[in-house]
Amino acid sequence: MTFRFEHETLGQRVRFASGTAREALAAEIESLGATRVMVIAGAAEADLATDITEGLPVAVRHDEVVMHVPVPVAERARAAAARHDVDLLVSVGGGSTTGLAKAVALTAGLPIIAVPTTYAGSEATNVWGLTEGAKKTTGVDARVLPRAIVYDASLMLTLPIELSVASGLNALAHCVDSLWAPRADPINAALAAEGIRALAAGLPRIVDDPADLAGREEALYGAYLSAVSFASAGSGLHHKICHVLGGRYDLPHAPTHAVVLPYVLALNAPAAPEADARIARAFDADTGLDGLQALRERLDAPRNLRDHGFEEDRIGDAVEAILPSVPETNPVTVTPENLERLLRGAWEGADPR
Amino acid sequence: MTFRFEHETLGQRVRFASGTAREALAAEIESLGATRVMVIAGAAEADLATDITEGLPVAVRHDEVVMHVPVPVAERARAAAARHDVDLLVSVGGGSTTGLAKAVALTAGLPIIAVPTTYAGSEATNVWGLTEGAKKTTGVDARVLPRAIVYDASLMLTLPIELSVASGLNALAHCVDSLWAPRADPINAALAAEGIRALAAGLPRIVDDPADLAGREEALYGAYLSAVSFASAGSGLHHKICHVLGGRYDLPHAPTHAVVLPYVLALNAPAAPEADARIARAFDADTGLDGLQALRERLDAPRNLRDHGFEEDRIGDAVEAILPSVPETNPVTVTPENLERLLRGAWEGADPR
Repeated sequence: MTFRFEHETLGQRVRFASGTAREALAAEIESLGATRVMVIAGAAEADLATDITEGLPVAVRHDEVVMHVPVPVAERARAAAARHDVDLLVSVGGGSTTGLAKAVALTAGLPIIAVPTTYAGSEATNVWGLTEGAKKTTGVDARVLPRAIVYDASLMLTLPIELSVASGLNALAHCVDSLWAPRADPINAALAAEGIRALAAGLPRIVDDPADLAGREEALYGAYLSAVSFASAGSGLHHKICHVLGGRYDLPHAPTHAVVLPYVLALNAPAAPEADARIARAFDADTGLDGLQALRERLDAPRNLRDHGFEEDRIGDAVEAILPSVPETNPVTVTPENLERLLRGAWEGADPR
Repeated sequence: MTFRFEHETLGQRVRFASGTAREALAAEIESLGATRVMVIAGAAEADLATDITEGLPVAVRHDEVVMHVPVPVAERARAAAARHDVDLLVSVGGGSTTGLAKAVALTAGLPIIAVPTTYAGSEATNVWGLTEGAKKTTGVDARVLPRAIVYDASLMLTLPIELSVASGLNALAHCVDSLWAPRADPINAALAAEGIRALAAGLPRIVDDPADLAGREEALYGAYLSAVSFASAGSGLHHKICHVLGGRYDLPHAPTHAVVLPYVLALNAPAAPEADARIARAFDADTGLDGLQALRERLDAPRNLRDHGFEEDRIGDAVEAILPSVPETNPVTVTPENLERLLRGAWEGADPR
């Protein structure tokens, strides 16, 4: 192996501050010297946002948050920021909320402090996305990377178990896939392995006891690392497959990831022994797949695509749609045959081994 | 354990580019849009620097590099940068060379691309240092963090084995110590563990064959991670001890680190089982100390302080000098008794177990 790679580390402050989001936020706002804050939080997080910004220099609260950040929604948020002459954006919510803050930062150049309430991970990337009608545009821009993240696991105690598991397995897929993604490198791999370890430790605790703060903290920490490694490594085979399945057949995001991952791992592991060994070590299992399957069992994770709206007679169509987007870096050469086998296995929930 | 910490990730591009420093440098210079480069390289690296900057837009070459960056030396470099109206600093060399570039960046705000030729690690930190007479001033400033690093292990093929080992063990000490340093956190720990793994894999290959490029690459990669984790975590007990020993008794930097590390690990490991387990896993050994000692033996590392100029009758004085600087976060309470035992062990080279 030649040891040649480029790695861009994104500069960002992160605070893990269970139960003290308000204090952490206050400290970050002060260190940025901001005096006119725009708080972005959808209706579902409005109370929470009010709570953790109490006493802070809030100039305006903005609650129009819409999935996939439609352009008109972004425009209204930008106008509100300008009208109120804000000098800092604070987002409280999941991926759509962070996404809206990014849309404002992209044109206004304002700094963002993100307070995530899901495991989405968008807060750790410099990727923005906007939709105009059915068309989604994404891009990479240094201005949209939040300056600081405040992670408060206590804000997630109300996230339902099922959603926590699905979202956590989605994060796990980011970690695993980043080991063979186009910009995979040893630094991403080390962070991804730590992410796997943390998610594998945290998620079962959430299932056992949804009120277990320590479990939520570990899972949240793992989700953060998954976002960092994934943002740096790019999309691997797993995400290309899930992207097509989600976009073309409208399958639900998180369960699709949860089901497909073991099949991709089973396909790639024999040709990627170093990656597999890393995954195995992170799971403390004999092989990566052993570890993943034991965790999936423990979490009673989704088992097949059949139950989530994928029809058997679309497998051939899916193979054709996925093939052109398979990354050249994938350790195994993907053929119509092995991809068909993979999708059929995922459809019926066969043993991936 | 409460899972609360703040972590600042420093944004930086890193290229591992064995044998292609020139091309990597050209790409980074272009991406920064620089047209008037100041190349800083001491006499020892002058040819090397000329070689890897051939054809690049060099406005001036500066070769007055002095250890610890004396203020008059920094002033002359700053004047040269201003006189030649440069827009980028490229440093080619070890810690003193990077340090001089930082001194210029600190006042001129110019970006730096660092091309390290040792395992010093200064290129991955935002710490600067200047000396005025015998007084050393250090500080932290975002402006001195190099924008990009170009690591070309082939530039190190002439670094003598002994120096490679000592410098590599110094990097290893950064990794280990960062597990219990004042700002130790799981992210630093994950990077430090990867650094230990890489150094433990690379250093023996250098000893076996000084021309083994792959060994140098692994060691260099490990040294980079050691700098990242150490810069973030701060100085732990090990570095406080070595700092006093080096400053007060003029002991040589690298061998002092190499000798002292196993004694600090032996002291702390029983009270830091998680850290020890991480170190052990990184070494693929039963305990951290087993792994470290096996590596030290393999490398024929320095064994005691006695051979490096430390006198037995200074142990008491050293205990008194070190105690006030022991970090509060150290897992074991450091007492005059256990510190005296530690230093006596290191002095005579006793088995730390």
